[in-house]
Amino acid sequence: MLEIADIIGIIAFSISGFIIGVKNKLDLLGIILSAFFTALGGGIIRDLLTRREIFAFNNSLAGSIVLGVVITGIYLKIHQKNIENKTIFVLSDAIGLSSFSISGALAALEAGFNIFGVVFLSLITAVGGGMIRDILINEVPFILKEKFYGTVSILIGFILYFFHFGFIIPFIFIFGIVLRVFAYINNWHLPKI
Amino acid sequence: MLEIADIIGIIAFSISGFIIGVKNKLDLLGIILSAFFTALGGGIIRDLLTRREIFAFNNSLAGSIVLGVVITGIYLKIHQKNIENKTIFVLSDAIGLSSFSISGALAALEAGFNIFGVVFLSLITAVGGGMIRDILINEVPFILKEKFYGTVSILIGFILYFFHFGFIIPFIFIFGIVLRVFAYINNWHLPKI
Amino acid sequence: MLEIADIIGIIAFSISGFIIGVKNKLDLLGIILSAFFTALGGGIIRDLLTRREIFAFNNSLAGSIVLGVVITGIYLKIHQKNIENKTIFVLSDAIGLSSFSISGALAALEAGFNIFGVVFLSLITAVGGGMIRDILINEVPFILKEKFYGTVSILIGFILYFFHFGFIIPFIFIFGIVLRVFAYINNWHLPKI
Repeated sequence: MLEIADIIGIIAFSISGFIIGVKNKLDLLGIILSAFFTALGGGIIRDLLTRREIFAFNNSLAGSIVLGVVITGIYLKIHQKNIENKTIFVLSDAIGLSSFSISGALAALEAGFNIFGVVFLSLITAVGGGMIRDILINEVPFILKEKFYGTVSILIGFILYFFHFGFIIPFIFIFGIVLRVFAYINNWHLPKI
Repeated sequence: MLEIADIIGIIAFSISGFIIGVKNKLDLLGIILSAFFTALGGGIIRDLLTRREIFAFNNSLAGSIVLGVVITGIYLKIHQKNIENKTIFVLSDAIGLSSFSISGALAALEAGFNIFGVVFLSLITAVGGGMIRDILINEVPFILKEKFYGTVSILIGFILYFFHFGFIIPFIFIFGIVLRVFAYINNWHLPKI
Repeated sequence: MLEIADIIGIIAFSISGFIIGVKNKLDLLGIILSAFFTALGGGIIRDLLTRREIFAFNNSLAGSIVLGVVITGIYLKIHQKNIENKTIFVLSDAIGLSSFSISGALAALEAGFNIFGVVFLSLITAVGGGMIRDILINEVPFILKEKFYGTVSILIGFILYFFHFGFIIPFIFIFGIVLRVFAYINNWHLPKI
């Protein structure tokens, strides 16, 4: 199940990287880079910090999906379709958020990290790619502004640190999706100080 | 002695990350991340570059201190108290600068790095966390503007490269603190070209 | 041959880092960092991602060249000489671009990376240093705006992935230089979408 979730997540994250690249008037190379960083950057950081084989550089599926999204995106002109607020996109993005957070937390647990490491890896795997993209295009990362997005990752990392039994993972996965979609619909946000 | 110095440094760096997060109107998650990156980011880069176990993800003391500072900071509203120019803060920050620089230089020496590696690790361990924070909030890193701050790290790395005998480290530690405080009081800065 | 090319590349990249540092009114430390990151940052990322010994921290030649360039640059005031559009600089920069791209692609091939890894390493080795510098001074990285610069790296990575025979490398090296210089003269750029 998580593998399909990963694929859906890579598609959703590539689309958001593609659209932001086009909107920032990057050239074709910049747009491809924006899609790659958004979809695969978080996983590369995860593999670097946990000293695993870098998945995106060893399995060609991930990169092929990103490339496919960019080509399809240009062909279908998806950047003109305000896709980001469509239900299908919000849901796909939530699936990616939940599945990437879980993969980050599991990698951290396997590496023997403490709770800070597990929560951080959960967060950086899910939102690190988007952060790199936002830094590149000179914006304050969305994660520092977007309401209740990274918080979902953090909660997933937190829960998984205490309850990392195989059978519980699907429930956490669903929990993450529901929480994000619910937060999106109800426009939740964290307090400022 | 260095362990206490590290703790003081983590506290001072967390406070500065906390205050900058609040001042940049980040939400609660953003503020916590700002404090974490400022206090622990440099050490994570150090451990990544020297291929050591990542301290912050294996020892829970560091993360707990950061979390404690954020909670205390919110409770005491330290962001309204202009604490950054108080003697106690300047001194704590100088202690952190000196002790983080030494830990970076020692890790680089142990990894067999040359003088450029030792000086770079000394610098990036002490100021890397603050640089990440400044990049995230879309500011030119303070280290590129702040007068005579990173220079202290560089001098520490330089001296330690040539004289890395155990008994000399406390003297270098004191030297770093005195130099930074002295530079702060006298408003030293490096020349421009 | 590639060793001389690397040296020429380090010189050219240091000069561009130096000039950009001066133009952004950084202090002396900032200028030195700008030159170091531009010249050596890409190689450090390459070595980190492919888990090799970090060249710049083990061989002192690279760092010494950067330092030499900065000292010479200050002495000769090269930032006042509009050197960036002179033939000699464009050529040296193209040599660096080509040779750094090749070194990145070869390191990725040796690490067993797939085509995405080889192309990415080729690109990040050549332009990663400049990207870090641009992020630090709070600019959108030149690579996302500059016409047909990173594209040269990508083509080199792509070709090397399919044809990595020793005897072909000099030809790819020359190809990269000619392509970049040609693109520069004719003001080529990639399409936007």
